[in-house]
Amino acid sequence: MTRKIVILGAGNVATHLTKALIKEGFDVRQIYSRTIESARELGVKTGVHFTNNLAELYKEADIYIFALSDTAIEKLASMIDFNHDPLLLHTAGSVSIDVLKNSSKNYGVLYPLQTFSKSRELDFKKVPLCVDANTKHNIKEVCQIAATLSDNTRTMGEDERKKIHLAAVFACNFTNYMYSQAEEILKQDNIDFNIIKPLIEETAAKVQDLSPAKAQTGPAIRNDKATMNKHKELLENFNELKKLYTFISNNISKLKE
Amino acid sequence: MTRKIVILGAGNVATHLTKALIKEGFDVRQIYSRTIESARELGVKTGVHFTNNLAELYKEADIYIFALSDTAIEKLASMIDFNHDPLLLHTAGSVSIDVLKNSSKNYGVLYPLQTFSKSRELDFKKVPLCVDANTKHNIKEVCQIAATLSDNTRTMGEDERKKIHLAAVFACNFTNYMYSQAEEILKQDNIDFNIIKPLIEETAAKVQDLSPAKAQTGPAIRNDKATMNKHKELLENFNELKKLYTFISNNISKLKE
Repeated sequence: MTRKIVILGAGNVATHLTKALIKEGFDVRQIYSRTIESARELGVKTGVHFTNNLAELYKEADIYIFALSDTAIEKLASMIDFNHDPLLLHTAGSVSIDVLKNSSKNYGVLYPLQTFSKSRELDFKKVPLCVDANTKHNIKEVCQIAATLSDNTRTMGEDERKKIHLAAVFACNFTNYMYSQAEEILKQDNIDFNIIKPLIEETAAKVQDLSPAKAQTGPAIRNDKATMNKHKELLENFNELKKLYTFISNNISKLKE
Repeated sequence: MTRKIVILGAGNVATHLTKALIKEGFDVRQIYSRTIESARELGVKTGVHFTNNLAELYKEADIYIFALSDTAIEKLASMIDFNHDPLLLHTAGSVSIDVLKNSSKNYGVLYPLQTFSKSRELDFKKVPLCVDANTKHNIKEVCQIAATLSDNTRTMGEDERKKIHLAAVFACNFTNYMYSQAEEILKQDNIDFNIIKPLIEETAAKVQDLSPAKAQTGPAIRNDKATMNKHKELLENFNELKKLYTFISNNISKLKE
């Protein structure tokens, strides 16, 4: 029997997850979001009933997925009376499954390890899904759902998931910050960011085959002090950028020692 | 008349440049490298005569391309007697064209803004080429060569080229360092680096359409102190990683102010 699902949240993760669930034939019954505009946007996009009124929440679902910010998960769960012990899942990398334990006997995690934007299409089949749940039975159930959505699923405990989330901050958020600083430097001389895009693409493509430890290049790993000093001179009037340059270059230089 | 070219160097840049030149029908007469193994490797790969003996250097070429490390360019140029004023080019982002001025009346730069590995194939037509030279005539000549090799060429002065090279350090070297730190974190728990590869790919793909300043996500830009504290706890026994996490998170948090 097809499981009936309610999605709580209408942000980037909720959007991609809802679309993927529908694509794979799941019965998504309702989208709830605190803000009606977000609820409507995703509801209209997917043809799913939407609401911003908790009193209207569909109560007969088998699964409720909390695709919300870290702090909102527990708060919203505590506001709903789940009297039939449905399976409650959240999608957060750093949040314990225990935040759901007071709301149902059945709870777990479906954490998609990817960066989502509403405006970008994405092949959900390739998104690594990290699975956890409070019982073996529930783990099996979440695994089944995950395996339908993606070809890349993995069951793991809380510690492993949190470590992966931390690694993701480096690989995605910190990496994007480096891109933004490159953009900043180019902007100082009115140079179009486009010129550096092929380099960004290739740098990411390279580590698909090669360990990043082995792919490290640049003046810092060569301990090429002359070039590093020239770079610092260029940043003479940009104190924060200079500090960042020095900090990371020092770290990279240490790798060689 | 096809210009006769000699390549000085047999590293990553020399390898890709030589292959691209040959592909586009240029007459690459010789490869010189100080180490015979590198010279041979590239010579055999491309079918070009190779040597590690400066006395054997082909003296009748129209163009000599110094695809060498920053410090080696001037040193090698000064060791060769170019008595017919051929066009001398180097391929370095941060080195002045003036390092070649004592060796010939004609000199310039052909700087490919990309990260090259011998083992990875690459579409040279998509590599941005930054062009400079000492006279208008020479600029025109280097531009012609560049435009044959790539669909993405740009003439620029020294200051702009150096700024681009600095931006490239952030977008490539520092980015790769973030990947390596993610790998490090995963290794602590024996988690396969593969799990994070789709995220790395998508993070780079995202900024092909979207400004990285707008693409910034993660706990730091949300100023989500609870998550950041959890992350720092996970790094309690990894002092360097914790310092790096704190430094970059603080920088990102400042963006919001």
